[in-house]
Amino acid sequence: LFAFAGGWTGEWKVIRSRPVSGEALPPVDRLAVLSGDARIDARWILRGVTSYERYVTFDEKRELAAKQPALGRPESTCAALIPIRKSSEWWQLAADARRAVLEDSSHHIRTGMRYLPAIARKLYHCRDLGEPFDFLTWFEYAPADRNAFEELVDMLRGTEEWQYVEREVDLRLVKED
Amino acid sequence: LFAFAGGWTGEWKVIRSRPVSGEALPPVDRLAVLSGDARIDARWILRGVTSYERYVTFDEKRELAAKQPALGRPESTCAALIPIRKSSEWWQLAADARRAVLEDSSHHIRTGMRYLPAIARKLYHCRDLGEPFDFLTWFEYAPADRNAFEELVDMLRGTEEWQYVEREVDLRLVKED
Repeated sequence: LFAFAGGWTGEWKVIRSRPVSGEALPPVDRLAVLSGDARIDARWILRGVTSYERYVTFDEKRELAAKQPALGRPESTCAALIPIRKSSEWWQLAADARRAVLEDSSHHIRTGMRYLPAIARKLYHCRDLGEPFDFLTWFEYAPADRNAFEELVDMLRGTEEWQYVEREVDLRLVKED
Repeated sequence: LFAFAGGWTGEWKVIRSRPVSGEALPPVDRLAVLSGDARIDARWILRGVTSYERYVTFDEKRELAAKQPALGRPESTCAALIPIRKSSEWWQLAADARRAVLEDSSHHIRTGMRYLPAIARKLYHCRDLGEPFDFLTWFEYAPADRNAFEELVDMLRGTEEWQYVEREVDLRLVKED
């Protein structure tokens, strides 16, 4: 269990917070990334769990394992936290239909792979926790890869999969100890 | 969110509680099925959420929807609660590998379908909640279908999928208002 706490403390300075679809998150100055049930004074706290892969195939998993960098690289002083909620229409699709939209049509996994190892990514699940979002995706990259990151999110937002996104907030952060 | 509370109250009388793999659950007389965050004095409480389908395909979903009865049929005075935890080996498999074991090799969905509508079934997910089990499966059936139910669980326990089950408890219940 991880907690993303928006407020006045934490090593990440929030440089932008923008609602892409649906309701915004209350504005905050800093973000703390905490593990477990840590208690912290914050304006909001979003919780999620790292969980097993819902759609990734054996071949994709092997390729991801080979290319995916760890979080916390010293040069990765830029980050993004993108909380997303999908529509009930999405969740009512059968598993094969969701995979078909996510990858066969939208190339979500393939597109993310193309930006590895530059753009590190970690997915937290929160739908089953009764949280306001279904997923929290965390990205880390170096300042030189800022344009690549914009390209990646723009590409994903143009896909069929994104037609099922009913709430999305995009927070950009820089590391400031 | 649902809660299965084992203790001294509830409409279901526990007639048997047996560890199939791993640790048993402390013995209880009765079981209450509660929704939400209900507070109750109990010996143990297992929580789970009804969630989206992880493996069921479009065709299977349609067939299930056509055959699956609702819970709470008056003649269904027998029930079973089967909490299961799978091994970390299972959870590290890619999504397509898990589906291949679950259905192509073990026919989990197909086998359950053969016992519809006699044996009603509802799956609760709890792995991402940090619970002691990954799933709670609830079955309801009439006394005349007891043998069919034994056949169903015996068949599933003989499959490749069940080699990944590291903890399983089998509770049998009868309705007693």
